[in-house]
Amino acid sequence: MINPVELIKKKRDGGKLSPAEIEELIGGYVRGELPEYQMSAFLMATYFQGMTAEETLTLTDLMLRSGRVIDLSGIPGPKVDKHSTGGVGDKVSLILAPMVASCGVPVPMISGRGLGHTGGTLDKLEAIPGFQTDMSVEEFRRTLAEVGAVLIGQTNDIVPADKKMYALRDVTATVECIPLIGGSIMSKKLAEGIDALVLDVKTGDGAFMESEEQAVELAKALVGIGTHYGKQTVAFITAMDQPLGLAIGNWCEVVEAVECLRGRKISDLMEVTTVLGGAMVWLGDKASTIEEGMKLCHSAVWSGRAYEKFLQMVGRQGGNTAPLREPSVYPRSEYSLEVRSKTAGYIGRFVTKRIGMLAIELGAGRRQIADRIDPKAGIILRKKLGDRVEEGEPLALIMTDDDKAGREVQGAFSDCVELTQKPVKVGPRIRLFVDSGGVRPWVTPLVY
Amino acid sequence: MINPVELIKKKRDGGKLSPAEIEELIGGYVRGELPEYQMSAFLMATYFQGMTAEETLTLTDLMLRSGRVIDLSGIPGPKVDKHSTGGVGDKVSLILAPMVASCGVPVPMISGRGLGHTGGTLDKLEAIPGFQTDMSVEEFRRTLAEVGAVLIGQTNDIVPADKKMYALRDVTATVECIPLIGGSIMSKKLAEGIDALVLDVKTGDGAFMESEEQAVELAKALVGIGTHYGKQTVAFITAMDQPLGLAIGNWCEVVEAVECLRGRKISDLMEVTTVLGGAMVWLGDKASTIEEGMKLCHSAVWSGRAYEKFLQMVGRQGGNTAPLREPSVYPRSEYSLEVRSKTAGYIGRFVTKRIGMLAIELGAGRRQIADRIDPKAGIILRKKLGDRVEEGEPLALIMTDDDKAGREVQGAFSDCVELTQKPVKVGPRIRLFVDSGGVRPWVTPLVY
Repeated sequence: MINPVELIKKKRDGGKLSPAEIEELIGGYVRGELPEYQMSAFLMATYFQGMTAEETLTLTDLMLRSGRVIDLSGIPGPKVDKHSTGGVGDKVSLILAPMVASCGVPVPMISGRGLGHTGGTLDKLEAIPGFQTDMSVEEFRRTLAEVGAVLIGQTNDIVPADKKMYALRDVTATVECIPLIGGSIMSKKLAEGIDALVLDVKTGDGAFMESEEQAVELAKALVGIGTHYGKQTVAFITAMDQPLGLAIGNWCEVVEAVECLRGRKISDLMEVTTVLGGAMVWLGDKASTIEEGMKLCHSAVWSGRAYEKFLQMVGRQGGNTAPLREPSVYPRSEYSLEVRSKTAGYIGRFVTKRIGMLAIELGAGRRQIADRIDPKAGIILRKKLGDRVEEGEPLALIMTDDDKAGREVQGAFSDCVELTQKPVKVGPRIRLFVDSGGVRPWVTPLVY
Repeated sequence: MINPVELIKKKRDGGKLSPAEIEELIGGYVRGELPEYQMSAFLMATYFQGMTAEETLTLTDLMLRSGRVIDLSGIPGPKVDKHSTGGVGDKVSLILAPMVASCGVPVPMISGRGLGHTGGTLDKLEAIPGFQTDMSVEEFRRTLAEVGAVLIGQTNDIVPADKKMYALRDVTATVECIPLIGGSIMSKKLAEGIDALVLDVKTGDGAFMESEEQAVELAKALVGIGTHYGKQTVAFITAMDQPLGLAIGNWCEVVEAVECLRGRKISDLMEVTTVLGGAMVWLGDKASTIEEGMKLCHSAVWSGRAYEKFLQMVGRQGGNTAPLREPSVYPRSEYSLEVRSKTAGYIGRFVTKRIGMLAIELGAGRRQIADRIDPKAGIILRKKLGDRVEEGEPLALIMTDDDKAGREVQGAFSDCVELTQKPVKVGPRIRLFVDSGGVRPWVTPLVY
């Protein structure tokens, strides 16, 4: 065994570690042999020096092998999942899973909770009364076979190493590191038993990877790992320079997802959802191109099949479908406060990350791990990038049970919107497409 | 209180921490409130991003205030110490302390043990039978008042924070970081109660700061801290591209020091010692220039006063002076092996760090903290840089009780010496002089 200090020093000085050396550090840490203070020094050295593709693969492999890999081979056809790097108002999974499943592609999805300024699919699902995100692996498999889609939370026997590593990264400022993010994401996805994966790598001020360059680097790392494991993996670089859709919160995002499943066309949200869905249907062998997959997705919504699949999925996981069918039966926040524009102009910029943080202040997320989420709390945007606004016109609706927070957020929201006097050209929502062949520009075909 | 993760992130991203923020991290760690894993991530971030002069001062202050500051104001005149960043064969302190004390300048010296490939003054002193390096602060003060020089080890009540920080740095590959080294060195020296300090910052392959650029950077940081505390501080950048003097070990270095105190002129060793001593005598107000101080040092040796002071110092600290007066009564190593040159030429280079490691293999240092040192073990050089060597001529003498290690070192030593066919020009031993006014070239005046 090599002295771990020498290995930390090697990484610190920009060296490349062999698989055995990475195993000694990461494996040692997961087994409880390497102390936390050495792992955190190694993580910070890795933050500065990065990892080669080979090092990242070794890391992923060690994480993956730390726990159970679900075997879904008993379910016919390719199983396809989607992963998003997270953003504000990102309710895509709620629409996507039933939409793709209703096209005949099984979607086994293990989701996470809100992190930093971003929301989490699990928290949104749990806004539906009775919805269960805790499930055994057997039950996960059975639900997938029956319904075609299943959405659960991280279980303890899948990639336990990631939980341990992530907890340490979170308290040592080593989260934002591409190889560590790559190993964490891909080990969890590979453990799900999927055959193919579509990635939504967000870029912009509401994303973890703010610059497009970083987003592309992450997408390439993720696609590289998936491809190495024989899983078809593609990524889209999508804009997170404004909240996705209009709703930011938990219950209000469920409602927005239901509206979309019923045919409402919120253009940025449905463009991203349909493109990701088209790619999943294509990777699931139900279409010969992404465009054909998109058409199938569109018709799954149009026909009502996607919505029916969502109700079936919710019911199967213990959720009460009544408030989905009739949202007015759901409790409402005590306070609803309108934010009005002080001047006229065009929406030139959203300070998206800050908007995510404001939603947390209202109760829509956790400031600390023990905090309870208020599912009713949130923000509804009245305007999107490029929209014309008149003086006194509503910009957003604030919903909360906390009077003081509500008024504070009402005051602060205006600072999150920049108006310009000239009309604004809004950039494309989907910027690039990344697969094992490289990075290409993406132009969304008009299918809806 | 700010979240420590935000502070680690701030340093990671190249930001400057306020005194309150550094106190929260370092103070929190020393008080046991900040966990080791966060401190080690912060240390690694600091390794990459450095610290401003102001941050380094705050760090030094926190370390200093973690323990006791010795009050030596009861002893008349400026108290002056020397610190060396460590090298191979560096027995300067053993000659310097009695030499400067015999010129009337009190020398309160707290020394360290061998570290890495370098030897430590404490280990050398303990080669003298009976010599006590453990002493209470009262006893330290009393000995200094009586003898004019005292050499002890680190005590638990002086800068306890440094012990805790250093232990963590040692196991997390964050030792080689100038602001952290600066804070560690200067807090300990300031706690001694000194009025002025002379620094010997080594450069070359046997030094911790191998490049002259790094050495100068460290010297400037150290001088800056000392000056800020109102202590006159000067530094010399000296060559560590070969062992200093001829002996490398513990007892053999004591013997070499005694020979020098008795008038033997080992040119590199005595040049460095006399220049450092001259500066100490000058800072101690016993000479009006460094050159005049050097002359006083030279005459202290020439007159026998320096040697008598050494015997007094050893006797006062419990050491047996008999083997100092007559080294032949000291036990000898079981094995003495001659290393002979395979070819003829000029000594062009020593692999100094490796020679330091070979001495440890012989028993002269510790491979692990619990190892016992063999004071007899060591290496005596027969040649220095630039010397002419004939084929078969002795290069070095190996002394050890470990037959196997002895033969291995005998074989390996030749690889630590590079011969050239043309005569070699040896660079100056003292390269630069650094004080609060800046960095200047140094040319040693001829006083001996």
